[in-house]
Amino acid sequence: MKNIAIVGATGAVGQELLSLLAARNFPVATLRPLASARSVGSFVTFRGEQVRVAEATPDAFAGIDIVFFAATGSLSKELAPAAARAGAVVIDKSSTWRMDPNVPLVVPEINPEDLRKHKGIIASPNCTTIGLVMALKPLQELTPLTRVIVTTMQAVSGTGKEAIEELEHQVESWKQGEKGELRHDIYKRQIAFNVLPYAETFTENGYSTEELKLSAETRKIMGLQELPVTMTCTRVPVFVGHSESVLVEFERPVSPDAAREAIGAFPGVRIVDDPLNFVFPTALDVAGTDETLVGRIRVDVTNPNGLWFWVVSDNLRKGAATNAVQIAEKLLEMELV
Amino acid sequence: MKNIAIVGATGAVGQELLSLLAARNFPVATLRPLASARSVGSFVTFRGEQVRVAEATPDAFAGIDIVFFAATGSLSKELAPAAARAGAVVIDKSSTWRMDPNVPLVVPEINPEDLRKHKGIIASPNCTTIGLVMALKPLQELTPLTRVIVTTMQAVSGTGKEAIEELEHQVESWKQGEKGELRHDIYKRQIAFNVLPYAETFTENGYSTEELKLSAETRKIMGLQELPVTMTCTRVPVFVGHSESVLVEFERPVSPDAAREAIGAFPGVRIVDDPLNFVFPTALDVAGTDETLVGRIRVDVTNPNGLWFWVVSDNLRKGAATNAVQIAEKLLEMELV
Repeated sequence: MKNIAIVGATGAVGQELLSLLAARNFPVATLRPLASARSVGSFVTFRGEQVRVAEATPDAFAGIDIVFFAATGSLSKELAPAAARAGAVVIDKSSTWRMDPNVPLVVPEINPEDLRKHKGIIASPNCTTIGLVMALKPLQELTPLTRVIVTTMQAVSGTGKEAIEELEHQVESWKQGEKGELRHDIYKRQIAFNVLPYAETFTENGYSTEELKLSAETRKIMGLQELPVTMTCTRVPVFVGHSESVLVEFERPVSPDAAREAIGAFPGVRIVDDPLNFVFPTALDVAGTDETLVGRIRVDVTNPNGLWFWVVSDNLRKGAATNAVQIAEKLLEMELV
Repeated sequence: MKNIAIVGATGAVGQELLSLLAARNFPVATLRPLASARSVGSFVTFRGEQVRVAEATPDAFAGIDIVFFAATGSLSKELAPAAARAGAVVIDKSSTWRMDPNVPLVVPEINPEDLRKHKGIIASPNCTTIGLVMALKPLQELTPLTRVIVTTMQAVSGTGKEAIEELEHQVESWKQGEKGELRHDIYKRQIAFNVLPYAETFTENGYSTEELKLSAETRKIMGLQELPVTMTCTRVPVFVGHSESVLVEFERPVSPDAAREAIGAFPGVRIVDDPLNFVFPTALDVAGTDETLVGRIRVDVTNPNGLWFWVVSDNLRKGAATNAVQIAEKLLEMELV
């Protein structure tokens, strides 16, 4: 039995973590929900009981075995080292530590052995990356990849609770007949009935930070530091479930049937691919589930070594909370905590 | 002054045609709105007057100079040859005639000279194609293209009025707290708060008919029969405005600045591209306008000869009605009608 803390317990991912720890019967001895000062004193529900939220401070981790960080990057930067010094293993959902060479970046189905290298902090990848690598890994094992070209269509819950509310409010304003661009505080433009060609913020080279994360994290998780990954990340008016349109290029031709067989045999992924009967995966199909779904596998008409596919996964579950809990489960299994 | 007929005058594109012919002061002598039997007897408004809709039959085109077909492909297949035999020039919005070698497929900014070859029927391209080629043409003139990789995010109005209503009804049902997948008759899955990885229907090779049109039409309009074009077409919960995530590859490197200059100088296209200030085009910005907007131009991180960009256009205006009216205007200007 382990003593568990969750930093950011009141947020969208924090809530999923609480429900998954209970649903997956994780051996929790005590649960300590933590949050920034403004959420202190509120309650979260765990296994049917109300638990009071305490403030996340450097002293809050005494006696804790595993801390999930599901808060802002700045809170994680400030507190994760203190938690590790206090003897806890940190599983961090923010982007803060992911590219640190001393921090393993882990999807348990893909690179569990990297957990052995941890020095107190383990990072869980970005929600967009996880869906992608779950489909890429079995393909790479089949035939080496030479290039990955991605356009993502990301759900607002990837941004957080405030973005979910912003989309809801905009739909409400639209219903009431409001004209012009609807009020937006979280995104830079109206997200309802629109597509925003960015996620997070931009860098000098014209790419968004989200796009650069997708490339760097994919390489690190797959252990392919030279893999060319190029991408456009967009935000769509969907509550839960990231969709990705992916074109992969291989060293040699790979048939769609071989790709379906390899992906379908990989744990945590399922093929949903019968287009003539309009069977394909959508964001709606993964919301609230842990599976990554892949469909629309077909040969690129411009390159016999290329395959298109469509991948969807729940950004709050496998893309965030589930992956973090799976990391904790794997740490127990490997006796690393 | 010309006698004009519109087949499908009561539909989404037909309505746009009526408003554009008036707004652009097209020299209309008489207007004859036509539709399938079930719409006969209804009225459309043209220049503030109510005009009664007559049935579209092979005999309905006597004395007509230009007929716009904005109806189903089957009606166009049945009636366009009769209209042409009656001496009218047909401008067809359906996909029926686009790939016929005897039918010019025209975007007036790109290939107006093809109009001279017409034998009574002229095709206007698919809404998805028009936005794409408006950005590709100036790039091709700058440096030859070697490959085009596209993921589209298409608005429901591209499907028609019934699809707009379906999205509206689904949003209403969602507001009322309805659970499970919301009722859908037009699309194969719920479109509200979801992304559907298809448009139209599928073929044996795993591509949708919409995808194959995008490739074939782009080649024909640009007069580049061998240009490699590969794509995934998706439908998003947006009312008006198609968005496209495009990766183009050139024979030689093209700088983003050179691309911006070339695209910005092309008629009908405008650059909206200052990502550090969150300036980029969205579907919302083009709804109700005739311009094609391009932004997020940047060098592919995996190929120095590649450029990413983001292009949006109003699928009912430049993607349909505006392009058709521009074809008619060009026919007058070139004295081809």
